Amino acid sequence: MATAGVIIIGNEILSGKVVDLNSPYLCRELRALGVDVERIATIPDDIDVIAREVRAMSDAYDFVFTSGGVGPTHDDLTMDGVAKAFDLPIQVYDSIVERIERAQGRVANASLIKMAALPAGAALVDAGDLWFPLVVVGNVYVFPGIPELLRRKFESIRERFRGEPFALRCVYVKLLESDIAAELHALLGEFPELRLGSYPRIGEAEFRVLLTLESRDAGYLQRALDSLLARLPPVAVAKVE
Amino acid sequence: MATAGVIIIGNEILSGKVVDLNSPYLCRELRALGVDVERIATIPDDIDVIAREVRAMSDAYDFVFTSGGVGPTHDDLTMDGVAKAFDLPIQVYDSIVERIERAQGRVANASLIKMAALPAGAALVDAGDLWFPLVVVGNVYVFPGIPELLRRKFESIRERFRGEPFALRCVYVKLLESDIAAELHALLGEFPELRLGSYPRIGEAEFRVLLTLESRDAGYLQRALDSLLARLPPVAVAKVE
Repeated sequence: MATAGVIIIGNEILSGKVVDLNSPYLCRELRALGVDVERIATIPDDIDVIAREVRAMSDAYDFVFTSGGVGPTHDDLTMDGVAKAFDLPIQVYDSIVERIERAQGRVANASLIKMAALPAGAALVDAGDLWFPLVVVGNVYVFPGIPELLRRKFESIRERFRGEPFALRCVYVKLLESDIAAELHALLGEFPELRLGSYPRIGEAEFRVLLTLESRDAGYLQRALDSLLARLPPVAVAKVE
Repeated sequence: MATAGVIIIGNEILSGKVVDLNSPYLCRELRALGVDVERIATIPDDIDVIAREVRAMSDAYDFVFTSGGVGPTHDDLTMDGVAKAFDLPIQVYDSIVERIERAQGRVANASLIKMAALPAGAALVDAGDLWFPLVVVGNVYVFPGIPELLRRKFESIRERFRGEPFALRCVYVKLLESDIAAELHALLGEFPELRLGSYPRIGEAEFRVLLTLESRDAGYLQRALDSLLARLPPVAVAKVE
């Protein structure tokens, strides 16, 4: 199964001024495609911190997705960080300068030229009708922080990440988590490959715990679900989805 | 200035089934108290991963806040991870078993007793009217993942984190970010201690970039704001807050 790490870059997230919408989006999309997100790191706009994180995740996972820190201002340091992660020089891409000048109908100023300064050897992937391409360095996909742009860019390349997705079943239980913990433990003894989640909820009228069962093998999942339902008192199950 | 790291623990976040509401809350609250959150790590329910992250953040920052993975089921591994981080044994706290039995009006079963199994030497802090205390191990504050409970526990101890908060001013600008980047750079040359954020927005009618200026020194902040406004064409400023 393919694995991924997500790096959210930006002081505005850490200081609570902006809520990160990008990591929930990427986690949902990647999960649906069959990619396992193993870590999210949210870090400041700092070249050395970015470089260390990118390098560590690039070594550890199949894919790395970064969000934020691309743009023309002083706090946009992601390209420098990615370059440093792989000891690459920064190079101004004339093809991007030309796109910028075409899109804006004027000669690029120094700030716009900064946006065309990328790690040497980066692959540029055209993303739908956006004038700025997606930048890919090795297994690192560099996305902008603006959620609308990130989503459009991700959608343009999502099929390259498609693997074998998980099948999911949900069981809503009326008992306390502490009253079913022993049964869950026994279920995992019988189905050690099952991915089983148990999430207590406060304030729901119909149930107190949401159980999630996941497997890539639909038959295995069904057998585990049947076994779980046999272990619980029928009256304790509010709903199965 | 006090620093903090936040660790969000739970497969349900990484698999996109649940959106993490706790790190935005903690970032906002800690910022308002004057604490600098330097990193958020979102990691799976895995004892070794939890132990490594807790140890690294405990060494790096003044305070560490964890969320999730406390409870009676198989995937609640945070207490084991925190214990492993500091080479502490796990010990059943009789005082918590008693609280559990009082709250539930029955003898605790094995799953409930698991909830009373904590790293030896943990400090237990009563949290408002919640029957389960807040668990503190060294500089690590162990919170539940359920947002309502996390908030009530945090509110009960928030004053112990109060330092000298930042003052914030916001400037909404009608120009493109690339048209003001040079002025922002010059502003930081004049005010190197200023924390300056620049956030382009799509789809706002009144402005295209939100600038945030922050400092602990109100006079310094006002001088930086005056300097910024003198650098921008007055017609380009939509609003100052």
